[in-house]
Amino acid sequence: MDLLIAGGTVVTMDPQRRLIEDGTVVVRDDRIASVGKRTDIAPHFSGKTIDARGALVVPGLINGHAHAAMSLLRGIADDHLLNDWLERYIFPAEANNVSEEFVTWGTRLGLLEMIRGGITTYADMYYFEDAVARVTKEAHMRGVLAETIVDFPAPDHRTPAAAIEYLERFIEKWQGDPLITPAAGPHSIYTVSEAHLRAIADLARRHDVPILIHLAEAKLESENIRATHATSPAAYLHQIGMLGPKVTAAHCIWEENADIALLAACGVGCVHNPSSNMKLASGVMPVVDLRAAGVAVGLATDGAASNNRQDMFYEMDLAAKLQKITRMDPRALPAMEVVEMATIEGARALHLAKEIGSIEEGKQADIIIVETNAPHATPMYNVYSQLVYALKSSDVASVMIGGKMVMEDRKMLTLDENEILTKAREYQRRVTDSLIASRVVS
Amino acid sequence: MDLLIAGGTVVTMDPQRRLIEDGTVVVRDDRIASVGKRTDIAPHFSGKTIDARGALVVPGLINGHAHAAMSLLRGIADDHLLNDWLERYIFPAEANNVSEEFVTWGTRLGLLEMIRGGITTYADMYYFEDAVARVTKEAHMRGVLAETIVDFPAPDHRTPAAAIEYLERFIEKWQGDPLITPAAGPHSIYTVSEAHLRAIADLARRHDVPILIHLAEAKLESENIRATHATSPAAYLHQIGMLGPKVTAAHCIWEENADIALLAACGVGCVHNPSSNMKLASGVMPVVDLRAAGVAVGLATDGAASNNRQDMFYEMDLAAKLQKITRMDPRALPAMEVVEMATIEGARALHLAKEIGSIEEGKQADIIIVETNAPHATPMYNVYSQLVYALKSSDVASVMIGGKMVMEDRKMLTLDENEILTKAREYQRRVTDSLIASRVVS
Repeated sequence: MDLLIAGGTVVTMDPQRRLIEDGTVVVRDDRIASVGKRTDIAPHFSGKTIDARGALVVPGLINGHAHAAMSLLRGIADDHLLNDWLERYIFPAEANNVSEEFVTWGTRLGLLEMIRGGITTYADMYYFEDAVARVTKEAHMRGVLAETIVDFPAPDHRTPAAAIEYLERFIEKWQGDPLITPAAGPHSIYTVSEAHLRAIADLARRHDVPILIHLAEAKLESENIRATHATSPAAYLHQIGMLGPKVTAAHCIWEENADIALLAACGVGCVHNPSSNMKLASGVMPVVDLRAAGVAVGLATDGAASNNRQDMFYEMDLAAKLQKITRMDPRALPAMEVVEMATIEGARALHLAKEIGSIEEGKQADIIIVETNAPHATPMYNVYSQLVYALKSSDVASVMIGGKMVMEDRKMLTLDENEILTKAREYQRRVTDSLIASRVVS
Repeated sequence: MDLLIAGGTVVTMDPQRRLIEDGTVVVRDDRIASVGKRTDIAPHFSGKTIDARGALVVPGLINGHAHAAMSLLRGIADDHLLNDWLERYIFPAEANNVSEEFVTWGTRLGLLEMIRGGITTYADMYYFEDAVARVTKEAHMRGVLAETIVDFPAPDHRTPAAAIEYLERFIEKWQGDPLITPAAGPHSIYTVSEAHLRAIADLARRHDVPILIHLAEAKLESENIRATHATSPAAYLHQIGMLGPKVTAAHCIWEENADIALLAACGVGCVHNPSSNMKLASGVMPVVDLRAAGVAVGLATDGAASNNRQDMFYEMDLAAKLQKITRMDPRALPAMEVVEMATIEGARALHLAKEIGSIEEGKQADIIIVETNAPHATPMYNVYSQLVYALKSSDVASVMIGGKMVMEDRKMLTLDENEILTKAREYQRRVTDSLIASRVVS
């Protein structure tokens, strides 16, 4: 039995960037079996038909950098200086609250929000990543999931050595899973020593898994690395043998031309987080320059403590507008390029472009149906413009991941929304109490 | 019979910025009769009760600068240079399509989107403004509506003299209406001669109506005025006698310190349009400096041809983030100040703060109910953070304007949504055909 998504405008994001009006996508098991005009294709297949007339049929959105469990800390302390925010709020809240159970429920909450907004793949960096993988699998979501390693005591491991050991077991457990790609997550240059960075790079190479890392996010971070190592953050990672075609670096804000060339030459994927970068005043990623150099640039929400949405429609809008205003050029990063960042380029940035990122025969069936029968979506002169500048996450009606419907007509099929929201409110009380107890708030 | 909105968290935006949990707002006729704790108030009133438990009860949002009818041109030509955009797309599309009927349907479409997103008052500048007023009244929306005057032939009048004559009849017809405030709309310094600006200022003073104008939007515009008049745009308007406490200026980007002091001294309201300013790469309004000088700064969507959303939730998010990133300070323009801009400060910017902008006894009952029972809205540590950084226009469930429900549980009560969307699609075909006929697109 095949499944046919029929009658919508298919935004393929294939190499020709075909838009197929009155199109049909045929799904067999977890993959796309055929794509084309409904009248050409439908006669050759039979099976359940999902009516997508009047809607856009779009590749599932790819959220290239997240900390899903931090959904439980959404808006805990906004509008503060980065240091204050981390040291006075986030670190105490994490130290007192983050357990395997917290990560389990926080990730579920994050995935609910992401799926509702049309995200089908996300990259995650957090603690207790095995729990993240279990929950992701249970939601039938696709994830590149990195156990995060820092030199200071983390919520799940007192030492980086213990975290690295856990990482190896985590990789062995999940490698080969059709939905979960286990990954190594050295937090950043400024939180992990050179010896540990080298050990993690070595382990990742040995197991052929991706590395996710924060790179050149804050200006001061970059200045410190230049002062300590007499080189740029990107060049430092290259020197110690970490950069390569399985690395995905989040932020990449403070990059000079030589760094951009280096990232391109090494095949590193870079991920832009416009909301987080603006809200924390981190700086502006040179998206246009990175893309011009051939770097795959994805798009992401970052964690809910710094964004506070996990909504790729907001990120698409912001990505376009932020490049335009900072370059003072309205032609910078046009709408279609932003949709690329959220789909096929996001897949390239995560080194998964052979499997996801476009609606093409043979690829994984990660597909969303976006409704357009609403005042804010009418008229529609250009599909890409509409996706970036007019449509909203609330227009996503149905979501398929790996051939399986996970949301249909806005009904969640793999996650229990009421139970998760109830748990989230319990955690809100616990986190608030813990901040009062440690006199962070009164 | 009173109407009670009961059980929600009332975000009053009153001078004490009271948040009332389990609050009640009592509405009698078109005004707010009482606000307080449900248990204190409910026993003293009887009437229909609207259950707002679990929701936020917020002053209706104020969209300080729009061109509602341009909804029909949403996304007609994005990512172009301003001149190209205007001369190759917008002006031909307007010249060939904008009629009284176009304005009627375009405004209806714009109001649908605005009401769905919790906007209860908007300021408009367009042509055939009498049709805009009729449609606004029919939707039971509140509007400060300005007939726009330019020196070149406009869709409704061949000459500015004819437009000024029309403006005077328009004012006489609508002045005193409980929902409609007629206003004068000289388009800008660079499109209206000094003689006509003086005539319009004189007419507005004579009739005691507001003036809406675009001010210091584009850098080149400001440079030209400095070159021609040896003064800044704001100082030029002051010299010719236009600035005063009934003026609302949109954009106000290229303002120096002396201009900011002048705008404050004259009691001019300024309106920020972050989406439009970023997308057209116009520049960044000095919001923090204007507010520090005591200027009332409102928030707005601008027209759908340049935004393309008429969604104040997007504008709130962008306003906060744009100030933070351009000042490189995450403390700049915190969430509560942004909510002020969308409510009470927006009312001040339109010189309507005695009537609207907060939930206080005696004010007009312009109130929205925003649901929070959703993954992206959970947990909620801070109401203002949530409104700016997490909630969305699609969370607005009900909208009351002047004591009358215009949307209840997402059902539109004053506008026929299906009919309007059908008409909007007809106009899309007509506009596209006209652009093909005039060889703008092929």
